[in-house]
Amino acid sequence: MADAPDLKALHWNERGLIPAIVQQHDSGEVLMVAWMNEESLRKTLDTSETWFWSRSRNELWHKGATSGNTQRVTEVRFDCDADTLLVLVDAVGPACHTGERTCFFRVLGRDEIARL
Amino acid sequence: MADAPDLKALHWNERGLIPAIVQQHDSGEVLMVAWMNEESLRKTLDTSETWFWSRSRNELWHKGATSGNTQRVTEVRFDCDADTLLVLVDAVGPACHTGERTCFFRVLGRDEIARL
Repeated sequence: MADAPDLKALHWNERGLIPAIVQQHDSGEVLMVAWMNEESLRKTLDTSETWFWSRSRNELWHKGATSGNTQRVTEVRFDCDADTLLVLVDAVGPACHTGERTCFFRVLGRDEIARL
Repeated sequence: MADAPDLKALHWNERGLIPAIVQQHDSGEVLMVAWMNEESLRKTLDTSETWFWSRSRNELWHKGATSGNTQRVTEVRFDCDADTLLVLVDAVGPACHTGERTCFFRVLGRDEIARL
C-alpha cells in the first residue's frame, strides 16, 4: 500500500542499530532491551523468534540458541519517532542472563534515592 | 544498607543520559521512551511525576507541563546492565505528542516486511 510506512524509514543509529524493547505479550511484563540491526530484524520477522545484534561480540545473536529460552514473536511495533521497536513475545523461560524472568528485577529504592 | 546498589553505578552514557521506558503500571502498556539525566531522575523521584531531558531542546522537560498529561510515578526499576530505566506510571492522558495513548501505535505489517 502506498501509505504503508517503509521500513527503510526506521531510524537506525549511526551504527545501523535500533533498540528493541521485548515485552511478554499477555502479561505485559517488560523483559529486556537489546539492539537489532537490519539483518537481525529480518531474521526475527522470518523466523518469528528474536534475533539481536551483540555490540560486545559484534555478531548476530539468536536469543535462546544456547539456553533454550527462545522468544516467540507475536507482534513488532515501532514508536512515533521510528527509533525504537517494541517486540511482543511469548518467552518460554527467563529473559535475563542472570536467570531472572526479566532484566528489570531491581527497584530503585529509598537507599539509592538518598544517595542521589 | 551496604549491599544496596548505588545510583552512581547506573550506566549513564557519554552524554550523561540513560533511556527510560515508561509503562502504565496496571495495564502494562508501554507508553513511550525518553531520556533522563541525573537531574531529571532526581526530580522524577522527588515529585513522583516524570521529568526527562530533551536532547533536541537541551533542557529539562516536565511531561505534561503544557498538555496537562502528567504521569504519576509508582515505581522505578532498572535492568541487569543498569543502563536502562523502567518507569511505572499512572498516565492520565495520551503519552504521545500525536495524541495517541502510546507512542508505539504502529505495527510492523506484511507490507513493510516485504520491503526489507
